[in-house]
Amino acid sequence: MGQVYDTVIIGAGPGGLAAGLYAGRAKMSAVIVAKSLPGGQAATTAELENYPGFPKGTTGPALTQAMADHTASFGTGIVQEEVVDVDLGADPKVVKVYGGKEYLARTVILAPGASPKSLHLQGEREFLGKGVSYCATCDGDFFEDLDVAVIGNGDTAVEEAMYLTRFAENVTIIVRRKEGDLRCNKSSAERAFANPKIHWMWDSAPQEIQGDGLVERLIVRNTQTGDLSELKVDGVFFFVGTEPQTGFLQGKVELDQDGYIIANDMMETSVPGVYAVGDARQKFLRQVITAAADGAIAAVAAEKYIAGRE
Amino acid sequence: MGQVYDTVIIGAGPGGLAAGLYAGRAKMSAVIVAKSLPGGQAATTAELENYPGFPKGTTGPALTQAMADHTASFGTGIVQEEVVDVDLGADPKVVKVYGGKEYLARTVILAPGASPKSLHLQGEREFLGKGVSYCATCDGDFFEDLDVAVIGNGDTAVEEAMYLTRFAENVTIIVRRKEGDLRCNKSSAERAFANPKIHWMWDSAPQEIQGDGLVERLIVRNTQTGDLSELKVDGVFFFVGTEPQTGFLQGKVELDQDGYIIANDMMETSVPGVYAVGDARQKFLRQVITAAADGAIAAVAAEKYIAGRE
Repeated sequence: MGQVYDTVIIGAGPGGLAAGLYAGRAKMSAVIVAKSLPGGQAATTAELENYPGFPKGTTGPALTQAMADHTASFGTGIVQEEVVDVDLGADPKVVKVYGGKEYLARTVILAPGASPKSLHLQGEREFLGKGVSYCATCDGDFFEDLDVAVIGNGDTAVEEAMYLTRFAENVTIIVRRKEGDLRCNKSSAERAFANPKIHWMWDSAPQEIQGDGLVERLIVRNTQTGDLSELKVDGVFFFVGTEPQTGFLQGKVELDQDGYIIANDMMETSVPGVYAVGDARQKFLRQVITAAADGAIAAVAAEKYIAGRE
Repeated sequence: MGQVYDTVIIGAGPGGLAAGLYAGRAKMSAVIVAKSLPGGQAATTAELENYPGFPKGTTGPALTQAMADHTASFGTGIVQEEVVDVDLGADPKVVKVYGGKEYLARTVILAPGASPKSLHLQGEREFLGKGVSYCATCDGDFFEDLDVAVIGNGDTAVEEAMYLTRFAENVTIIVRRKEGDLRCNKSSAERAFANPKIHWMWDSAPQEIQGDGLVERLIVRNTQTGDLSELKVDGVFFFVGTEPQTGFLQGKVELDQDGYIIANDMMETSVPGVYAVGDARQKFLRQVITAAADGAIAAVAAEKYIAGRE
């Protein structure tokens, strides 16, 4: 049998990196297995203003690279491989990667992350961080006195649209349904209808985002007539849902109905010795700071779990 | 009636500062009321190696000053005043400070912190951060191949002593009780007795910490004979309990039997619109990163609470 790690961490976003830092500092043998370069979703964030301790702000790539360096400085390695299967009930636990290699572990920390759902609009990817955003808490502040569009009409879309009126001059919500028909809860709908900064485009679907370097306009298609119109905006916020990257965990650990991993405040999942951290966990607030805290907690919990079994 | 703040934050450690940062960035009117300078317990930590994002490490004063500057940059003020009473059920809520002034608030975020209990030994305060520590997770790493003493014999003391054997060459636990008599759980005791790096001094009480700039020795008194002996150590870890600074909250919000504030994963306490963050909260891991995450969560929860009532 090969090396049995104290912990194998799946995912190299802020949650996985913080877990690796705390595990390494606690002298646990640990490895981070991640299919992409370190940083997770945060690495795609151009300006990152709200990670406490950086008064001048930082960028997603800079912060997550610093986190990766920090983690490496305590001896936790990062290997770039895609996990295809896990056996979490086995002893030791098994993490299988593409190509057949297996990592053996006393504990496993799941940090696979989540991604906002994309509509694959033309311009959506091109203008990410240049006017396109999936997070009002992260980016609302950049749109002071500017105009933005919001795509979506569920609870999150309508509530985040109202939040954006703290900054933006005009917030236009694009709704595919007929006038007045929203998927969100009634009280949020009523408050949004009463908000003078919020405007509505009904029977409408976003078609394309255009601009020269930065977002300048959204092309909107009327779903009844097929007519195209142009909406001048500086930003487009998408709130059409997020997807946890937990497909490989189906049936392996308890997930909620949307696929998020259920974990308690020690980050313990339904399987002993298996922890979940970051955006793939069912939680209230998905931010770099909360993912990093999850990671620290999971590593310490894993260390105590191993100590308790020895 | 004077200004009613969206939120009044009590305490300026990492939890309170992060709450102020997120509140300010969300354009909430917010003020932090704290009896001491910003930073909390973290500000007394010389080297701070484990806050993710600082690969070369940082210091407690530097990190917490950066956090305070970061918070101020989003418009949240900090006033240095001591809170003497609160009325959390009133509308608006009232925070009273020494001298009679009252702050009115739609929500209150409690971040009063906690302090390790001190034995008030001679040298204990003088050598803090120079060999004296209250946190193995924070400082164990600094004692690679060195000798340390541990004061205390409860669960935390014995478990942290074992953790310290990952780094230290010898860990001597000073116990006031007679040989073999520990307050900790049996399984931890058995593992500690079996650990060759752990040594015991029974019928013993620490008397004084001595050194020249750094800790060099601990003077120990035999409680049966009164004889003094000298133990050569590079570090002394105290695990004799911690005390949350929640005296002013007795009867105002639900506390556990040790005085820690009970809050759920949205940081909601037993009183609507009142949140608790950081070390004064009942929680698994007290670290700068977890306090900061608590603060971010509480501010966003408070913002949504206010939006839901409007």
